[in-house]
Amino acid sequence: MSLIIADHEFHSRLFTGTGKYASSQAMLASISASGSELTTLALRRIDLKTQSDDLLPPLQQLGVKLLPNTSGARTAAEAIFAARLAREMLQTNWVKLEIHPDPRYLMPDPIETLAAAATLVKEGFVVMPYVHADPVLCKRLEEVGCQCVMPLGAPIGSNQGLASKAFLEIIIEQARVPVIVDAGIGAPSHAAQAMEMGADAVLVNTALASARDPRAMAEAFKLAVQGGRLAFEAGLGGRSQTAVPSSPLTDFVQGLV
Amino acid sequence: MSLIIADHEFHSRLFTGTGKYASSQAMLASISASGSELTTLALRRIDLKTQSDDLLPPLQQLGVKLLPNTSGARTAAEAIFAARLAREMLQTNWVKLEIHPDPRYLMPDPIETLAAAATLVKEGFVVMPYVHADPVLCKRLEEVGCQCVMPLGAPIGSNQGLASKAFLEIIIEQARVPVIVDAGIGAPSHAAQAMEMGADAVLVNTALASARDPRAMAEAFKLAVQGGRLAFEAGLGGRSQTAVPSSPLTDFVQGLV
Amino acid sequence: MSLIIADHEFHSRLFTGTGKYASSQAMLASISASGSELTTLALRRIDLKTQSDDLLPPLQQLGVKLLPNTSGARTAAEAIFAARLAREMLQTNWVKLEIHPDPRYLMPDPIETLAAAATLVKEGFVVMPYVHADPVLCKRLEEVGCQCVMPLGAPIGSNQGLASKAFLEIIIEQARVPVIVDAGIGAPSHAAQAMEMGADAVLVNTALASARDPRAMAEAFKLAVQGGRLAFEAGLGGRSQTAVPSSPLTDFVQGLV
Amino acid sequence: MSLIIADHEFHSRLFTGTGKYASSQAMLASISASGSELTTLALRRIDLKTQSDDLLPPLQQLGVKLLPNTSGARTAAEAIFAARLAREMLQTNWVKLEIHPDPRYLMPDPIETLAAAATLVKEGFVVMPYVHADPVLCKRLEEVGCQCVMPLGAPIGSNQGLASKAFLEIIIEQARVPVIVDAGIGAPSHAAQAMEMGADAVLVNTALASARDPRAMAEAFKLAVQGGRLAFEAGLGGRSQTAVPSSPLTDFVQGLV
Repeated sequence: MSLIIADHEFHSRLFTGTGKYASSQAMLASISASGSELTTLALRRIDLKTQSDDLLPPLQQLGVKLLPNTSGARTAAEAIFAARLAREMLQTNWVKLEIHPDPRYLMPDPIETLAAAATLVKEGFVVMPYVHADPVLCKRLEEVGCQCVMPLGAPIGSNQGLASKAFLEIIIEQARVPVIVDAGIGAPSHAAQAMEMGADAVLVNTALASARDPRAMAEAFKLAVQGGRLAFEAGLGGRSQTAVPSSPLTDFVQGLV
Repeated sequence: MSLIIADHEFHSRLFTGTGKYASSQAMLASISASGSELTTLALRRIDLKTQSDDLLPPLQQLGVKLLPNTSGARTAAEAIFAARLAREMLQTNWVKLEIHPDPRYLMPDPIETLAAAATLVKEGFVVMPYVHADPVLCKRLEEVGCQCVMPLGAPIGSNQGLASKAFLEIIIEQARVPVIVDAGIGAPSHAAQAMEMGADAVLVNTALASARDPRAMAEAFKLAVQGGRLAFEAGLGGRSQTAVPSSPLTDFVQGLV
Repeated sequence: MSLIIADHEFHSRLFTGTGKYASSQAMLASISASGSELTTLALRRIDLKTQSDDLLPPLQQLGVKLLPNTSGARTAAEAIFAARLAREMLQTNWVKLEIHPDPRYLMPDPIETLAAAATLVKEGFVVMPYVHADPVLCKRLEEVGCQCVMPLGAPIGSNQGLASKAFLEIIIEQARVPVIVDAGIGAPSHAAQAMEMGADAVLVNTALASARDPRAMAEAFKLAVQGGRLAFEAGLGGRSQTAVPSSPLTDFVQGLV
Repeated sequence: MSLIIADHEFHSRLFTGTGKYASSQAMLASISASGSELTTLALRRIDLKTQSDDLLPPLQQLGVKLLPNTSGARTAAEAIFAARLAREMLQTNWVKLEIHPDPRYLMPDPIETLAAAATLVKEGFVVMPYVHADPVLCKRLEEVGCQCVMPLGAPIGSNQGLASKAFLEIIIEQARVPVIVDAGIGAPSHAAQAMEMGADAVLVNTALASARDPRAMAEAFKLAVQGGRLAFEAGLGGRSQTAVPSSPLTDFVQGLV
């Protein structure tokens, strides 16, 4: 089964970002190799004044959907302003809502995010909010009409993996919109783990952009996300405290002697 | 780069087992989907008396190398006996050495395993010892001529993942023979993690055999092992305690207003 | 250094609760043994109609400060109502603010909690809010005048320990009011870990009430909290990836031979 | 219940070491504050030639039992030699058996340790072997007559805590001699965790010696070990995946309105 967000069907469950790459070429090669069909883009990176922007055309050529984000916004008002601007510039009503007042840990603000989400939904936006892994907040975002929720795995860029695992499990169990784990995913095994838990997708940026070989790393994540999803669908067995032999433990040797 | 053990080249780094499947058909479908080129087989499962054995021919048809194991052996003597018997029956000098005196947790015996390994190496066997994740023991097994080491990730069949992670890291750093993580790997994310750490291969059985859909689960592991290995080669970035923004955190909104 | 909240000095950093005990006697014995100087009390447990309430007098005799909580409230309005009621009944302006709309996981609601906190602070309450381990939310609660924050370690009653560790660290680093880790602490080692990280106090209830011997368990937590705090003040060393010998690794034997 | 090893009764379950301290004074103050009744001593530190040794008399004055260790030995022969020498010099037949051929990670050698243990037991030693957390090896050491086993929690000096937790649990369940967790314990919470799991004692050295205030840290560990043991005896409750309310979740507010 493919993933559907606001009537848009995604065949890849690996979402990507465009930041932090050493070059635009490295970024394009990586996103292409990832198979990603959705990539976020900070408003700042869109050239506002000239036609010479060298970022958008090649991204559009890849066929990947562009998702403007409101990174840098510290209040609901700033984020709403940025979303409206992005809609005009990119001709899209999709927006990744990011509001983080704290420049050190970039943790999202729950109050401003919910307020901005409610407003943007009313204005017809497809709102994808980046939030703390807070089960009640995710439920409330769903209730005001967000088309998905994007709880964080760990502080953004930290590559720590699923530090919020205990809470992601609750979010996934309760959600009626897709759950996309965002931030903190630093290795393919983290992405696979999120998918095995039942997340609908993951968003990975730093781990790709900061790899020695971003293109190969993108392919690595692509495989891990597919593997994790497939495992979720194939039904993972439970854990056991005691050992369970793979091979029959019989007195075979004795019997043969 | 492919994996080489005793002059045999493997293109797949996912080793499998033949135990615990609901049926031979499920087992064959799963191993086939896994892309595995090496699968273990308990001596007990080989039909000793008749030609009617329905297990070996289809396995051989898959083109997968058979690795007899000494599962059930409780002493070096029993394991050596089993290895010799397997060599005759299967026409192979490869053996997975398993010696576990304890029927509850099936933990391998370090003393008996080293003793048996030394003897079997002298008799020309390619010895693949299943052992605790003990760095000194792994080094000694290498020194007596084992062609690889197979430290455990967690108690066999427990699906707990890499419970021995801190010690596997040391083993991998020190080893001059391939390190194959065996036992405890219960999900594709565990397998990917082992590969990201630099393990040369993983052996998975219970997680495939006990899945609701063993064939799909085999494919899931195949993808995760490939992804984990690719990430290892592509150079994973480190972890950070603080957040590092993916998107430039500028006062872009203010600038635009 | 002792802990100060709203000009009240606490010599014990172990806060307790009164719920879930098998009997009032077990509860009183446990709280007494814990050395706790603050214990929460659900409004429901206070006898509203008669003077025969057998809970309050013995608790007051212990000399422990009573902290009414708003458990059961699902909205800011309900919590504010409960806080005002408790103030009249118990003659205290302290309140533990708990708002959880979800009856299954009892996760606190960030929006309602911040709204209720702002109102109650204005009404002169000492507000101690129970919240998700959300660094931005904790900062905002501090800004509206809460005298401390009480982020959760794990889902309440789950005894899972510090599942929110990565986020508690950020909260502790940023807070200018005391941080009290609440919920999820299931063993003395969890409490010690919270104190070692620099938490100012912990609140423990289920782990005491559900122990086979609640009085002994209370003493166990008392010791662990003291030990953890002392370690924090004494300066824990860092972790190392490699081994560092405790004993001088010299060629002493060779030298002696 | 107190701990008994070879007919010697210990009232403290915190064993200590004498290495790595900045000064003898710091060491003595720390060991004294720890309440420890057993402390290890590397042979090298014992002055062989003169009577002027300033280490032994004060340690003996503390009333703490001295446990010579064979640190630095790389083979069974070296360890046996060291144990005999220590017996003569210190007039004790107790020995902590440490054999680690690898100077980087100081991991113990299972084969040499078992061989040396068997010999030393026959010579009347009370043998306390430091080993990897290998359940089968621990059982075999018990079988050759060791009076306890000392499995490691993590690489020595690494302060990583109970990295071998999954295996310590099996060792504790199976052992009929005391299990003392040695190495890797870097914080009081780690020590408490080991005791809660049912370990009989812990040995801590680096975490005390490297603390900013070794005396206060020793007291911190003393409290945590007591707390952890007390909790083990008082019966810890289990973990739960879902939340369980501490306070009755009733519609109290509605009822009151």
